[in-house]
Amino acid sequence: MSQILEEVLNANQSYASSFGSKSKLAAAPARQFAILTCMDSRLDPAKFAGLAEGDAHVIRNAGGRASDNAIRSLVVSYKLLGTKEWFVVHHTGCGMLQFTNEIMRDLLSQRLETATVRNGQWKDPGAGGGSTAGDYIDWLTMRDLEHSVVSDVKQIRSHPLVPARIVIYGYIYDVSNGRLVEVPEAMKAGQAGPARQHAAIG
Amino acid sequence: MSQILEEVLNANQSYASSFGSKSKLAAAPARQFAILTCMDSRLDPAKFAGLAEGDAHVIRNAGGRASDNAIRSLVVSYKLLGTKEWFVVHHTGCGMLQFTNEIMRDLLSQRLETATVRNGQWKDPGAGGGSTAGDYIDWLTMRDLEHSVVSDVKQIRSHPLVPARIVIYGYIYDVSNGRLVEVPEAMKAGQAGPARQHAAIG
Repeated sequence: MSQILEEVLNANQSYASSFGSKSKLAAAPARQFAILTCMDSRLDPAKFAGLAEGDAHVIRNAGGRASDNAIRSLVVSYKLLGTKEWFVVHHTGCGMLQFTNEIMRDLLSQRLETATVRNGQWKDPGAGGGSTAGDYIDWLTMRDLEHSVVSDVKQIRSHPLVPARIVIYGYIYDVSNGRLVEVPEAMKAGQAGPARQHAAIG
Repeated sequence: MSQILEEVLNANQSYASSFGSKSKLAAAPARQFAILTCMDSRLDPAKFAGLAEGDAHVIRNAGGRASDNAIRSLVVSYKLLGTKEWFVVHHTGCGMLQFTNEIMRDLLSQRLETATVRNGQWKDPGAGGGSTAGDYIDWLTMRDLEHSVVSDVKQIRSHPLVPARIVIYGYIYDVSNGRLVEVPEAMKAGQAGPARQHAAIG
């Protein structure tokens, strides 16, 4: 058993030993909201947004992007489990700001081991065994944080399965001080609107 | 400002006020692992697996499924940020066990408000304003938890951009007691193997 696996299982045993009344929590989030944010290890949404178990859905991926899969999750979140407000939270120092589709594709075509940064450039020794499968993936990289938050809030807002009554908030989490900073243009784009007539597609 | 937004911002202010040395954390996860799990509000991976800020990547979506977007995130996780071990954690009582693609598509075609369960059946008043856009989405529902964990570990293991050296663990989190329960077939499927020759695609 690896050291990490052992540590995780030990921590889990300790958590479970004082589980208490959490066994009675309902599946639907008690506070009826959801947070979409980045997988970054420095972010703990339960801590930075004050969530207890049972409070809110948390959706995370590289960048906190409004990918098809994030939207699938958000639609399940309101349609079956009743959330009404959604936060989109990107963050300073995000890894997704530091490369492009082209860089990622080039690195993966060289080899499948971890690349390193030297003098601000991603480097791979190019030992072989790479794959061009990465050419067919949109890595959802970002150039500008405010722009990515606004873009993702708009993407969710305009999705045909997202009802107009859902409120969407756009924030940037600052990894240097733990603060959520509002993105005004995203807040405006995410406001609830009058019910729209959704045209049937197909 | 909504009550939820006010509560979240107040909690955030309190968190940021004692942020301390977390401002110095590096972008790469210190403990070099990642957890893929469900967005369910009852799950707090930092608590159930013992993570401090800076320790590990956390990827979450409806079900904790190995969707294309989750695999995008995992590839970024090892390729640019050096993780070496990945956990796939599904959980008992998951909402994704309680419906099918057909049920979800039917509900969304009726209206875009929250549906309710009556006598074990999903019901929508069918007030209009629905959309058939859901017909084109795979909702990644599940029928059997062990099967979904095994299937997702195998999906990740066999992906052309996932190196053989990465170890993948498969677990089920029990919402009734907080315990992680091993899925032996998934653990076997997720073992590291000898380096494969990845054929170039395309």
